[in-house]
Amino acid sequence: MDLYFSPLSCSMATRISLYESGDAANFLEVDPKTKTLVGDGSDYLAIYPLGMVPSLRTDDGQLLTENAAILQYVADRRPESGLAPTEAIERTRLHQWLCFIGTELHKGLFVPLLGKKTPAEMKAYVLANNLSRLAYLDTYLTGREFLLDRFTIADAYLATVLNWTQVIPSIDMGLYPAVADYLDRHRKRASVAKAMAEEVVLWQAERARHKAA
Amino acid sequence: MDLYFSPLSCSMATRISLYESGDAANFLEVDPKTKTLVGDGSDYLAIYPLGMVPSLRTDDGQLLTENAAILQYVADRRPESGLAPTEAIERTRLHQWLCFIGTELHKGLFVPLLGKKTPAEMKAYVLANNLSRLAYLDTYLTGREFLLDRFTIADAYLATVLNWTQVIPSIDMGLYPAVADYLDRHRKRASVAKAMAEEVVLWQAERARHKAA
Repeated sequence: MDLYFSPLSCSMATRISLYESGDAANFLEVDPKTKTLVGDGSDYLAIYPLGMVPSLRTDDGQLLTENAAILQYVADRRPESGLAPTEAIERTRLHQWLCFIGTELHKGLFVPLLGKKTPAEMKAYVLANNLSRLAYLDTYLTGREFLLDRFTIADAYLATVLNWTQVIPSIDMGLYPAVADYLDRHRKRASVAKAMAEEVVLWQAERARHKAA
Repeated sequence: MDLYFSPLSCSMATRISLYESGDAANFLEVDPKTKTLVGDGSDYLAIYPLGMVPSLRTDDGQLLTENAAILQYVADRRPESGLAPTEAIERTRLHQWLCFIGTELHKGLFVPLLGKKTPAEMKAYVLANNLSRLAYLDTYLTGREFLLDRFTIADAYLATVLNWTQVIPSIDMGLYPAVADYLDRHRKRASVAKAMAEEVVLWQAERARHKAA
C-alpha cells in the first residue's frame, strides 16, 4: 500500500491506525502548497485531481480517497486489531463518530479556522455557530476513555483533528476539559506519540521549504 | 423506528432509502427554526442536543445520529435491497462517496451557500475554493448512471443535496452537465419523486408557519 499524506494533516489518522494494527505502508509525502510529491517532485494532482490527502493506493492498484473510507479499509485488513468493531450496532456507532468528526469538527469547525486566507467574517461566523460541537463532545467524553469502548480509528481521527487546536487561539480548550484531557491522554499513547513525533519533523521541514521558496 | 426529519433537508435521503427498501418508519417532523416537533410541540433538543436531523430511534430505543451512519443502518436492515454493497471494496467505495458528499458537498459547499445569515465574504470564499468538487463530480458522473454500479444510499444522499442547487443561484449547474443530468434523472426515480413531492408540501407549510410567527 502507498499512503499519500501531508505532515500533521488529517492523513495522520491513517498513520496512527497503521501503527496500531502493525500493518505496513509506503508513506509518500505531498506538499500541500505545491501539490507535488516531496520525494520526486511529481504532480500529485495527476494522482488525485482534488489534491486532498489522504489517498491510498491498494496493493492491487486502486486509489482510495476520503478519510473515513481509508481508515475503515486499513482497520478491516487487520480485524484482530479491534480498530473497527464488526458487530452491527457498534459499527453503526463507529460510522456515527467518523461522520461527526469529518463533517462537524474537521470541515465545519477546524478547516475554516485553520485557513490562513479564510475571511475574518467566516471565522467569526463559524465560531459563533459551531463551537457547540465541542461542548457536545465534551459532555460525551466526560468519564469516557475512548469514543467507543476501546481505541478505534475514530479515536485516531479525533486525536488528529483535536491536535490542531494548539494553533487555533480562538478556541479556548479550557472550556472543554474532558476534550482537553482526552487529547492529552491520546498524545501519550504510543502510536499517536510516534506518529506526531515523526510528522512534526516533516512539518517543520515543510515550513522551511515554503519560507525558502 | 422513528425518523426525525425536516422537509427537504439531508434527512430526505433516509426517507428515499426507506422507500427503496420497503422498510417502515414513523416520520417525525422537526421544525428547523424552533427545534420543536411539529406534531406535539415538544422539544427536539431534549432528544438530540445539537438539534440536527436526521436522527433515528431504533426499535430497541437507541438514538442514532449522522446521515452516513443512519443511511447504512437502514440499508443493512434490508441487504436484499442492494442499497449498500457488502463486498469489501465496493463497501469501501460506498464509504468514500458518503464521506465525499457529507464533507465536500454538504458541509463544505452547500451549507454555507444555503445559510440565510452566512456572511457574503464566506459565500464568496466557499465558491472560490470549493466549486472544484462539483467539477470533479461532473467528470466522474460523465457516462455513469449511479455513483456505484447500481442505486445505493450514496445516490439517495447525492440527489438530496444536489436538489438544493435550485435555491443557490450562485451555482450555475449549466457548468456541470453530467451532474445536472444525474439530478434530473434521479428526480424522476419513483422513490425520489415520492419523497420530494411529500416533503415539498411539508416545506411549504413550514415556510407558512415561519411567516405567520
